[in-house]
Amino acid sequence: MTAARPATTGGFATQGPVLVIGTGLIGASIGLALTAEDVPVRLRDSSPSALALARDVGAGVPEQPDDEPPALVVVAAPPDVAAGIVGAALHTYPDAVVTDVASVKSSIRAELEGFATLDLSRYVGSHPMAGRERRGAAAADSDLFAGRPWVLAAGPETSPEALRAVRGLAVDLGASPVEMSAAEHDQAVALVSHLPQLMSSLVAARLVGAPEEALGLAGQGVRDVTRIAASDPQLWATILVGNAGPTRTVLRAVRDDLDALLRSLDRAADDGPLALGAMAGIAGLVSAGNDGVGRIPGKHGGARRHYFEVTVLVPDRPGELGRLFSEVGEIGVNIEDFKMEHSPRQRVGMATLSVLPAAAEPLVAELQEREWRVVVE
Amino acid sequence: MTAARPATTGGFATQGPVLVIGTGLIGASIGLALTAEDVPVRLRDSSPSALALARDVGAGVPEQPDDEPPALVVVAAPPDVAAGIVGAALHTYPDAVVTDVASVKSSIRAELEGFATLDLSRYVGSHPMAGRERRGAAAADSDLFAGRPWVLAAGPETSPEALRAVRGLAVDLGASPVEMSAAEHDQAVALVSHLPQLMSSLVAARLVGAPEEALGLAGQGVRDVTRIAASDPQLWATILVGNAGPTRTVLRAVRDDLDALLRSLDRAADDGPLALGAMAGIAGLVSAGNDGVGRIPGKHGGARRHYFEVTVLVPDRPGELGRLFSEVGEIGVNIEDFKMEHSPRQRVGMATLSVLPAAAEPLVAELQEREWRVVVE
Repeated sequence: MTAARPATTGGFATQGPVLVIGTGLIGASIGLALTAEDVPVRLRDSSPSALALARDVGAGVPEQPDDEPPALVVVAAPPDVAAGIVGAALHTYPDAVVTDVASVKSSIRAELEGFATLDLSRYVGSHPMAGRERRGAAAADSDLFAGRPWVLAAGPETSPEALRAVRGLAVDLGASPVEMSAAEHDQAVALVSHLPQLMSSLVAARLVGAPEEALGLAGQGVRDVTRIAASDPQLWATILVGNAGPTRTVLRAVRDDLDALLRSLDRAADDGPLALGAMAGIAGLVSAGNDGVGRIPGKHGGARRHYFEVTVLVPDRPGELGRLFSEVGEIGVNIEDFKMEHSPRQRVGMATLSVLPAAAEPLVAELQEREWRVVVE
Repeated sequence: MTAARPATTGGFATQGPVLVIGTGLIGASIGLALTAEDVPVRLRDSSPSALALARDVGAGVPEQPDDEPPALVVVAAPPDVAAGIVGAALHTYPDAVVTDVASVKSSIRAELEGFATLDLSRYVGSHPMAGRERRGAAAADSDLFAGRPWVLAAGPETSPEALRAVRGLAVDLGASPVEMSAAEHDQAVALVSHLPQLMSSLVAARLVGAPEEALGLAGQGVRDVTRIAASDPQLWATILVGNAGPTRTVLRAVRDDLDALLRSLDRAADDGPLALGAMAGIAGLVSAGNDGVGRIPGKHGGARRHYFEVTVLVPDRPGELGRLFSEVGEIGVNIEDFKMEHSPRQRVGMATLSVLPAAAEPLVAELQEREWRVVVE
């Protein structure tokens, strides 16, 4: 295979031509990033209109019968069809490295192992941990993968060259490659992605029949918990069916915890608030939750740092938030995190700035000097 | 009772003296807001150090034996002790209106009805829907209630004067009074507050034993779902034990949904992805979640509006976010909502600005002109 561009340009490792099969959000974003670095990208999609859209946003050019064979094939199709497309690509392009970027890995590998005569040394299952709530090439973004983990699930037959090629793709797109087995990947996403999705949906589904007045009491907590409940039902059903085993394992553990919790609530409801074990059962769960949430890595993948929160009341009109940030910039304090919360029924917002502990006190003093209404937490 | 200050000052309705019993976050915040408007506030707390702290932050002065009797008593104590304190206050101050601000209402009312000889015409249970993750008078904030719902759960015996006094307190503190029965309140908070708290804790508790590498794949979804899992275990156990009946009702419904979900996953895991009903069961739940989350009222209590999201990549150093907001202010666009997301392992942040649809296109054009890296969704 030939390098269609000097491998040295911008330090880009990926050798073209690259064939991207499936031009939704992920496929088009990959095409866009590679095209921007002059790697030749060919596109294929079973939907002609999706293909045309991907071409129009600059993700590459539709493949032609007389194209040079690809050096790398990226299958960016839903998990239920990915294995078939990977198998066909391995067969059609005997010199190409093939990867898929679907969000489940074991079921695709199992399906591929069922095909006789496939050369799996050229296949690496992968999964960039990136996405958006909007789908399709219209939402494509060459920076979609910047700083995100990109799981590489090589199998025992995977050749070092194939692994190197897919790792190179991940690095070229700004992602952080993470090697784990297909089974480890599937268990991990069942826990940190599929479980939260389902629990969010379970809470949100309970709101369907709720009285209007009850919803009027909704605060930031229920909003945060249900944000991802707005996700696409069919996409999620496909993902979850493809990862049913690991997902049911973690969901069964949650059901056991939930049953224990219900026993505590039953005791309190039936025998009064001082019922033996009721308090301890509930406090124990909330306390375990404290421990669990403390294990989520912080910003930039480093250890979670403790920030001080400075909350500022901001009038809800153009320029006010800008003025706040501009003045924080003048004060010379770096904002580690930021949250905007709006008070219902009042034209005021609460901007919460997370800053390093040492920066909190001077920041508050300076902001108050400038007549901002500030609360320190 | 006498007005200790002219009722006209700043249009403030609340007549002092006010006795605040319990000087934690809520009690001290109420004291702070009233003191700022020159309403005389007396403080009582079973903890001398908590009392001294509340005095020091300016929430009022510790009560003295020869104080003028209060016109209004605010009981800001945990739900398990609130009824006893309310009962004693009604007895000690025969002319005072008494309210409590605990987060459960029926159990307190039931306990009060069990006391013979109490004049409940002067009692109004209430619940300001406000709080912070930090507790105690040190976190007190006179703006804590601004724009928040404040539930007034009057009983059949409540006098119009007592209801007017407590509504006046809520309005004076900037809150929006919402009248509902104690039972309606408890069912509403079971659904929009206690259920999300427990589900968040259930997800977070599963992370305790998770492999480090799995946690490394955590994205914004699991972070949002588990944010409130960092809450105080003992406080939550007290609240949930006090609202055990309504909470178990909604939690049982969730368990039924979860069992149905597990049946779908079992089918998919045991009989393969095309198992009858597996896809439909999962998609049905996610779809119900879509409907439920769509019912949560939007900003300022109005109907949820649809905003366009404009995402800007912001270098992670002091002043950059300030420069962005300052330039957005210059462009003259109002930011309806704002979210900051950090890419793990990379010194860049993604700032997502929600703006009205009509403002999105000009904003993007102007930002690009100023060489910001922008993605539109």
